[in-house]
Amino acid sequence: MTDPASPREDKVPRTARGERTLRALLSAAAEEFGEKGFHDGSISGITRRAGCALGSFYTYFDSKDDIFRALVNDMSGQVRDYVSPRIAQAGNGIEAERIGLLSFLEFARAHKEIYRIIDEAEFVDQAAYRAHYENTATRMAARLKKAAQQGDVRADVEEVHAWAIMGMNVFLGLRYGVWDDSRPAQEIADIANALIEKGIGKPA
Amino acid sequence: MTDPASPREDKVPRTARGERTLRALLSAAAEEFGEKGFHDGSISGITRRAGCALGSFYTYFDSKDDIFRALVNDMSGQVRDYVSPRIAQAGNGIEAERIGLLSFLEFARAHKEIYRIIDEAEFVDQAAYRAHYENTATRMAARLKKAAQQGDVRADVEEVHAWAIMGMNVFLGLRYGVWDDSRPAQEIADIANALIEKGIGKPA
Repeated sequence: MTDPASPREDKVPRTARGERTLRALLSAAAEEFGEKGFHDGSISGITRRAGCALGSFYTYFDSKDDIFRALVNDMSGQVRDYVSPRIAQAGNGIEAERIGLLSFLEFARAHKEIYRIIDEAEFVDQAAYRAHYENTATRMAARLKKAAQQGDVRADVEEVHAWAIMGMNVFLGLRYGVWDDSRPAQEIADIANALIEKGIGKPA
Repeated sequence: MTDPASPREDKVPRTARGERTLRALLSAAAEEFGEKGFHDGSISGITRRAGCALGSFYTYFDSKDDIFRALVNDMSGQVRDYVSPRIAQAGNGIEAERIGLLSFLEFARAHKEIYRIIDEAEFVDQAAYRAHYENTATRMAARLKKAAQQGDVRADVEEVHAWAIMGMNVFLGLRYGVWDDSRPAQEIADIANALIEKGIGKPA
């Protein structure tokens, strides 16, 4: 499977400098679309924020749609790359979900534009929108099944549990990450994790 | 508190016929925005679908933004009016949440445009978007607290549980209601409800 976050082969940066330019364009796009939304955001706004020429933009992207799709896939990958190594430190399958939510809350608080960007993909690039949630749910379902094999989680855990827990995390992140971050992230993660532990944890 | 779903006082229909026209315009708006989205949807598209004159539109709405806001509030109210009386039949607080999800899945399957419309409010009318979820969570938190008083649910149930369960329902509705409705709604509701029952039900 090709990674949809990567630019096409002829547009992959060949140098460290090219890599930095591509990264600057994606960060600028996150700001531009995060503030203005897709419709009002513009390529010139992105290059201005990135401090680079229009030609550099077209070295890596074909259009506004193209960089938006790349941005959604990039943010989806950023969440995964922030959360996954933290989850890997967990002592058991239930603790893994607590750390998963806690680190997602941290990420959402530090990148409040993420909801606006990924949610707008529902209208701008439905495939990227579905891919983000389907990939997240697939990773979570695999994690839960592994936890079931290790005896941390009930044996009948399945895809529905993954979508349920992902939905929980998304709305807790919106409410207690983006809209109002006054309660400690740890507290929110503990309350939700107690629900999950009792809900799908293996009875002692 | 005024109901934001209602038109302003000077725009309230005074006759049954007026009421029917308003209803026809809102249904047409659901089709128009559900198919085309807010940006590509148009007032003329709405009046054409509703089979009414442009003048009738302006009898009830000031602008495309105005009918979009009314539509979001109307759909939010429609979900509530479909789900609430069904929940009221439940024998206990856990059963209430099972019926809540089951009837929400039924509603989403029958009105697949609901996600597209309410989610687009995040970009078109942030206040209507937040109001939809805040009102839903407030109703759910009140229901859970009442269930705690009746001894069906743990005494420490709070707002975080309501947002968690609402998020679960929203994502299960998207995945198993709108994107793919091949699994029985009953089955999805049973799996999620077992998680909730163990997660927040009062230990026997």
